[in-house]
Amino acid sequence: MRATVMRRGRLVVDEVADPAPAPGQVLTRVLACGICGSDLHALAHGDRMVEMTELASRDEPSPFSTMDLDQDVVMGHEFCCEVIEVGDNVGNSRVGDILVSIPILFDPSGIHSLGYSNQAAGGYAELMVLSDPLALKVPNGLHPNHAALTEPMAVGLHAVRRSQFTPGRSGVVLGCGPVGLAVIAALRLEGCETIVAADYSPLRRELARRMGATEVIDPRDERAMQAWRRVDGRTQPILFEAVGVPGMLDSTILDAPRGTQVVVVGVCMEPDTIRPMVAVTKELNIQFVLGYDLAEFGETLRRIAEGELDVEPLVSATVDLDGVATAFEQLRDPGVHAKILVTPGRGDRRGASESS
Amino acid sequence: MRATVMRRGRLVVDEVADPAPAPGQVLTRVLACGICGSDLHALAHGDRMVEMTELASRDEPSPFSTMDLDQDVVMGHEFCCEVIEVGDNVGNSRVGDILVSIPILFDPSGIHSLGYSNQAAGGYAELMVLSDPLALKVPNGLHPNHAALTEPMAVGLHAVRRSQFTPGRSGVVLGCGPVGLAVIAALRLEGCETIVAADYSPLRRELARRMGATEVIDPRDERAMQAWRRVDGRTQPILFEAVGVPGMLDSTILDAPRGTQVVVVGVCMEPDTIRPMVAVTKELNIQFVLGYDLAEFGETLRRIAEGELDVEPLVSATVDLDGVATAFEQLRDPGVHAKILVTPGRGDRRGASESS
Repeated sequence: MRATVMRRGRLVVDEVADPAPAPGQVLTRVLACGICGSDLHALAHGDRMVEMTELASRDEPSPFSTMDLDQDVVMGHEFCCEVIEVGDNVGNSRVGDILVSIPILFDPSGIHSLGYSNQAAGGYAELMVLSDPLALKVPNGLHPNHAALTEPMAVGLHAVRRSQFTPGRSGVVLGCGPVGLAVIAALRLEGCETIVAADYSPLRRELARRMGATEVIDPRDERAMQAWRRVDGRTQPILFEAVGVPGMLDSTILDAPRGTQVVVVGVCMEPDTIRPMVAVTKELNIQFVLGYDLAEFGETLRRIAEGELDVEPLVSATVDLDGVATAFEQLRDPGVHAKILVTPGRGDRRGASESS
Repeated sequence: MRATVMRRGRLVVDEVADPAPAPGQVLTRVLACGICGSDLHALAHGDRMVEMTELASRDEPSPFSTMDLDQDVVMGHEFCCEVIEVGDNVGNSRVGDILVSIPILFDPSGIHSLGYSNQAAGGYAELMVLSDPLALKVPNGLHPNHAALTEPMAVGLHAVRRSQFTPGRSGVVLGCGPVGLAVIAALRLEGCETIVAADYSPLRRELARRMGATEVIDPRDERAMQAWRRVDGRTQPILFEAVGVPGMLDSTILDAPRGTQVVVVGVCMEPDTIRPMVAVTKELNIQFVLGYDLAEFGETLRRIAEGELDVEPLVSATVDLDGVATAFEQLRDPGVHAKILVTPGRGDRRGASESS
């Protein structure tokens, strides 16, 4: 099959062996797969990502296989696929089913992170195998491009569910990339009536408003917490840090009102400096979050499929496998795109090319 | 009156004006006042303390008066006093009462942090005024040296109450200075059955055991979390970071099991570097805490007075006003003392001198 392969820090399109479904797995054709900011990190700083993952598992061995950057990796963990073959002992999926899944694959060799593993190819390829017990059928004839957004949108729901948010409190979202937009959408669906969102990009601010933000600001004009004071200032807000670059956590600590919670959903892979005494003086709570659970993933799919959550505005381009490398380049500029989808079987470079 | 005064970064004993009780205040004779690690910080790095306090209040003006380091400050906020005169409109205290109080003073000029204010002298003095509505009578003939420990021990109770601790979970306390020891004592009284404590100092490890730690380790021999795995390893622990020096938070993040809470009760006044992605990967929660509320302060006094909490082991020396500067020097070595009490009226330098 053809795949866009991460090979020694570069993306190349190559022929690789077709995957074969082991017992409990299905072979699928990839219909759409979103490009995630973490993939950009992995390409540019994969060694740091591996180092941090290993550090986090120092005392508690991870069940996941580790990623060897000296060998090929096919990334892509936000996928929607069509089943073309079922392995033995598959009780859930049938040929022709349209599926999404949390990006985890079980096979006899272990547990793999789909898209960050040498063993389990992700969605930047024509074919991939999925674990049947984890796969969810896409209902209601939902378009694969929209179903592929289940994964990133579930990140937002998880962040809100893991926070101290309760209806009546307001949310402040710093950074309106795909993660911040997912948080905004989840806050709205969880009943948040005042959502302040901040981003430098006009495109992202417009998307923030469409996803449910009630007050959208450019940090050059007004700090997010000043805007929050202007439109609320009474209830205790939850701050979502969805930028994930060095310095953001410290500035969020400085901005946070006393006694509030800061939810860190942006993944800063570099060491970062904070002033703990400011956090101590304010008695802040910092909740770091990652991913989602199966229920949150399934609920997000249902919300998209039933029209509660309109993800169409987030798709700013589609590319085929040959367009992935260029799309990665374009995504380094945060103001141009929201989500670019890779459609391996139905090449269409128009979207990304148009906006370059 | 005589007082030990912080004057341009040094401690000097001087004659200063006697305080006079305003309406709602009582004039007291200081019987005992503990020396706190924050006082050592204030003497050595007062400018940083003021800067951090101002940063923390940048967007939310603090009701407290600010401390001007170019003017005299009489520190001391862990005091036990005897009333010698009552002001107008005092309904609670009478001459002869033995009192403790949270270190806050109201007067017509504003609200002051007793011991960190140019207006409100703390307990390193022969006399001080207290706000009658905040003062608590010391019951049961409790010795003033023990009553003075109410303040630091309340810090431990607050840290545990603000944490996610519930009976059945274990506690891991990193650092067994007065703050760590207060956390250990509070964990024990809140029903924690497995308390792992770590400190380099043999004295502090011995005190940790006396305050209720069930497993006490020297970090040179075994990391605290290794000890926790050895003696528990099943329930979800709460980690209390009670050291407060740069690097400790990052190392605690590395040590923390997935999904756990780190309570930061040690006050690190310097900027500090962490690796956020490790915290993200583990989905840690970091709760920063400071101080206590009135109920926690009162409950701590009751526990000490009723013998539930034996603070006698923590008092390692008493000094008079002339001995405060030397005591500060001695406390810079964390292995020699736990708590040194200043007894302004009843000089006794033996304790501190003996161990110098």
